[in-house]
Amino acid sequence: MSAIHTPVSRRRVIPAGFIDALRDRFGDRVSTAAAVCEHHGTDESPYATMPPDAVVYALSTDEVAWVAAHCNKHRVPLIPYGVGSSLEGHLLAVQGGVSLDLSGMNQVITVHAEDFTATVQAGVTRKQLNDEIRDTGLFFPIDPGADATLGGMAATRASGTNAVRYGTMRENVVSLKVVTADGRVINTAGRARKSSAGYDLTRIFVGSEGTLGIITEVTVRLYPQPEAISAAICNFPDLKSAVQSVIEVIQIGVPVARVEFMDTAAVRATNAYSKLDLKESPLLLFEFHGSPSAVREQAEAVQEIARDNGGEDFAWAEHPEDRSRLWTARHNAYFAGLQLRPGCRSSTTDVCVPISRLADCVTETAADLDKASFPYTIVGHVGDGNFHVLMLLDPDNPAEFEESEALNRRLVERAIAMEGTCTGEHGVGLHKMAFMEAEHGRDALDLMAALKHAFDPNDILNPGKIIPPPPVGKLVA
Amino acid sequence: MSAIHTPVSRRRVIPAGFIDALRDRFGDRVSTAAAVCEHHGTDESPYATMPPDAVVYALSTDEVAWVAAHCNKHRVPLIPYGVGSSLEGHLLAVQGGVSLDLSGMNQVITVHAEDFTATVQAGVTRKQLNDEIRDTGLFFPIDPGADATLGGMAATRASGTNAVRYGTMRENVVSLKVVTADGRVINTAGRARKSSAGYDLTRIFVGSEGTLGIITEVTVRLYPQPEAISAAICNFPDLKSAVQSVIEVIQIGVPVARVEFMDTAAVRATNAYSKLDLKESPLLLFEFHGSPSAVREQAEAVQEIARDNGGEDFAWAEHPEDRSRLWTARHNAYFAGLQLRPGCRSSTTDVCVPISRLADCVTETAADLDKASFPYTIVGHVGDGNFHVLMLLDPDNPAEFEESEALNRRLVERAIAMEGTCTGEHGVGLHKMAFMEAEHGRDALDLMAALKHAFDPNDILNPGKIIPPPPVGKLVA
Repeated sequence: MSAIHTPVSRRRVIPAGFIDALRDRFGDRVSTAAAVCEHHGTDESPYATMPPDAVVYALSTDEVAWVAAHCNKHRVPLIPYGVGSSLEGHLLAVQGGVSLDLSGMNQVITVHAEDFTATVQAGVTRKQLNDEIRDTGLFFPIDPGADATLGGMAATRASGTNAVRYGTMRENVVSLKVVTADGRVINTAGRARKSSAGYDLTRIFVGSEGTLGIITEVTVRLYPQPEAISAAICNFPDLKSAVQSVIEVIQIGVPVARVEFMDTAAVRATNAYSKLDLKESPLLLFEFHGSPSAVREQAEAVQEIARDNGGEDFAWAEHPEDRSRLWTARHNAYFAGLQLRPGCRSSTTDVCVPISRLADCVTETAADLDKASFPYTIVGHVGDGNFHVLMLLDPDNPAEFEESEALNRRLVERAIAMEGTCTGEHGVGLHKMAFMEAEHGRDALDLMAALKHAFDPNDILNPGKIIPPPPVGKLVA
Repeated sequence: MSAIHTPVSRRRVIPAGFIDALRDRFGDRVSTAAAVCEHHGTDESPYATMPPDAVVYALSTDEVAWVAAHCNKHRVPLIPYGVGSSLEGHLLAVQGGVSLDLSGMNQVITVHAEDFTATVQAGVTRKQLNDEIRDTGLFFPIDPGADATLGGMAATRASGTNAVRYGTMRENVVSLKVVTADGRVINTAGRARKSSAGYDLTRIFVGSEGTLGIITEVTVRLYPQPEAISAAICNFPDLKSAVQSVIEVIQIGVPVARVEFMDTAAVRATNAYSKLDLKESPLLLFEFHGSPSAVREQAEAVQEIARDNGGEDFAWAEHPEDRSRLWTARHNAYFAGLQLRPGCRSSTTDVCVPISRLADCVTETAADLDKASFPYTIVGHVGDGNFHVLMLLDPDNPAEFEESEALNRRLVERAIAMEGTCTGEHGVGLHKMAFMEAEHGRDALDLMAALKHAFDPNDILNPGKIIPPPPVGKLVA
C-alpha cells in the first residue's frame, strides 16, 4: 500500500547488544526482518509505514515484564501491537524501538458466567471471545468494525454499534492486568461490580493507547443474549430527517440496542461490496433487544418517530442469517468504502457531539465535504452522537491529503465548538494530537503530561503519542 | 457526639500571616471559631473530631482557585467540605489546615434536557437537583442515603439503591470542573456521551476524595422518569434465601431498578424509626422501572424466583406516596439503626463482592457478627454485590471499638479473598487505608502514590488519606 503522509520521525539510537539480549531471551520470537518490521509499523491510518527496529512475540505477562524492564533500562521505545487495526497512527514507531506483538497471548482464561465476567489475554479478539462463550448464553457487545483484540480495544477505549445500549470499553472493562514501564505487574481491580477503593487505575489505562502501561489481561463484562432481537432498515429522503429521527428516539428514552446511520454513498458502497440491494438513500439500521413484548414496543415507538420525519416503512431483517448479513455488511462499510475509488488510500476521522447538536454537525459536515475534490462516505453510531467520515484519497496526490486534513480540522473544530470531542472512539494516535489543546486546554494537557511522566519517567511506552509537546519556551508543570 | 477513636494527628504549622491573608480576601467568610472548625472536622465515621485551623466559605471556582494557590504556596493542607455526610473519616483534618466549605456553591447552572445532562456547582445536593429538574421529566438516580452534595458524591464515587440499574458516579459523571493543587482550573471533558481523546481525567478525579484536585462543578447524566414504576416488599425465612434470590434475579438479567436487602434487626429499627409495620424477618425491597408491560414482566419473573427460594408473596407499594415512604425509610436505615442503642456511636463499613459470592459473604459475616458483644444491622445494595454493616458501639468502651475493628478486618479480608473490594461505595478515607495494600498490592499503590505526587507535589490536598505510607525503608517509585 502506498502512503501519502509521513509524520516526523525521531528514531532513538538502539544501544549495542540490546537486540542480542532479546534474542538470547526469546530466540526466534524476535525478528528484525524488514517485512516483519514494516508490517508492525503500519496501521489503517493515512500515515506512511514507520517500522520498529525489532518485533518481539510475547506469550506471557512475565515475558512482557521482561521486555519492559529491558527497554526501560536502555531507554528503548516499546509499542504494544495486537492486530494492527487502529486507524489514527497509534502503533507507528515514530521513535523506533520494539513492537511487542501480543497476538499469541490469545487464551480465554476464565469465564464467570454467574457473574457476567470473562478474563482474557490481551490478544484475544472480540469475535474469538464471542465464539468461545456462545454456549453460556452470554455475549460481549463491544464491536469496533475490525475484529480487534480486547487489549487493543481497552487501550483505545473502543466502542462500536452496541455502545448506545451497552456502553463502551470505559464502562465494560472490570479490571486489567498491566505491566508498568519498569516491568512490574499490577492488577487494577478485583471483580466486584463497583468499588470506591482509591484511584480508578482501570479507567486510567483504558484509553491510554499503550503510553502508560502494557495491558496483558482484560476482564470484561458480559451480557445475557437477548431473549428476542429484531432488526430493521429505514430509508429517509435526506440525511437530516434520518439524524433528526435518531435524536427523537434517544430523547424519548427508547433503549435501542443499535442505531446506525449510513449516507447514500456508504449504502451504495455496501451494496457493491457485500452484494446487498439496500435502497440507495440515507438510512438507519436499528436493532432492538429485550423480551418479545419489549422489542415490539420499542420498534413501534421508533417506527412512529421515523414516519413523522419522512422515513419509509421498516424493512425487517427477520431471520438471524439476514441480521448477521446486515451487520457484517455494516462492519465492512470501511472496506466497502475503499472500493469506491480503487487504489485509494483512506483518511478516516470520527467525532462525537451531544445528541442535540448531531443534526447540525452532520449536515454542516456533509455540506463541507460536498465541496471536496474526492469521494467520501459518512457512517455513524448516531445514537451516541458519534459519526465517521471516510475520505478516499489519491495516494500520489499530496494536494488531496492537504485538502482532507483541512476538512478534518474544520470537522473537529465544529465538534469541539458544540461541546463535543475530536474522537469518539478511534483514539488520538498521531492524527488527533494537534487538536488536544483545543479540546482540553493546556492546563489539562499538563496534567496528562504529569501523569505520563509519573507512570513512564523514561518515556519508553509508545512515545510521541496522545500528548503534543508543549509550545516552545513553556514548561510542563 | 462523643467519639471513640482518635487517629494519629500530625498537624502542620500554619505560617504567620496565612490566615490574615485569607481574611483580607474573604472577610467574614473565614472562620477560626472552635465550634465552626469542630463541625468541619467531624463526619459520620467512628473517628474523633479533627478540626481544621480555619474554614473558608467559597462561592465561586475563582475563589477556590485563589485558596488553592494560597495553600499551595504556604504548604497548608486544604480539604473540600460539602455537607459532612462521609462515613470513613474522609474530611478529618489530620494535618490541620483549611476546610473549604463549598455548600454555598449551590446553583444548578444548566440543564440540557434534550441531551440528558445537567451541570451543577459542587454544593448542589442530590435532592435539590431532582427538585429543580422535576418539570423536565428527567431525574438523577444516584442516591446515597444522605442528601449529599454532587461534588462530594463525585469525590467518593458514590452510588446507592439505583446503581444496579443506572450505575454509580463513575458511570454518571460526564465531566468535571476541577481546581488543581496549584490553583489552575480545568474541565475534564466536553458533554459528548463518549470520547477517546486522551487520558480519562474525569474518572481520575471521580473517587479521588479531594486528594488530587477540588471539584467545583459537576456535569451528570439524567434519565427519563420511568413511564411506570412499581415497588414490592418480599419477606424471607432467612438471610440466605433472600440473598440467593437476588443472585438468581441478577443472573437471569432482569433489569431491576432497585433491590435492597435488610436483615431482621434493620427491619425492626426501621419500623420503630419510620413508623412502619414491615414484617420483621429478612426482606428484599424491589423497584421496577419501564413501560407498564415491562414492569409487569419483570415483577412476575422476580416473584417466581423469590417464591422458589421460600419468599412470601410480594406486598406491593402501589401509590407514589407509599413508595416514597418506603424508600425514605430505607434511606433512613442508618439513622434508624443508631436508635437501636441510644447514645451509641456507630462504625459503618461496606464491602462489595462478585454476585456469585454474595450469599457466602453475607452469611459468613452474619455468623461472625452474631458473636459480637454489641448490636448490628446489615443492609445492602445487593444487586451490585454490595452490603453494609452498622455496628453500634458504646462510646465509653474502647474494647468495643477494638472488637468492631477486628470484625471489620475479617469482613474486608473475606471480601478481598472473594475477588471483592474493601469498599463498594463509602470510599477509603482513613478507615480503609489499612486494607489498600491487601487489595491492590504495593506496586499498584506505588502507581497511585506517583499519581498523587504528580498532581499534588506539595501534598496539600486532603493529605494523609487513601494511600497508606509505604513500609519503612521502602521507597515509592
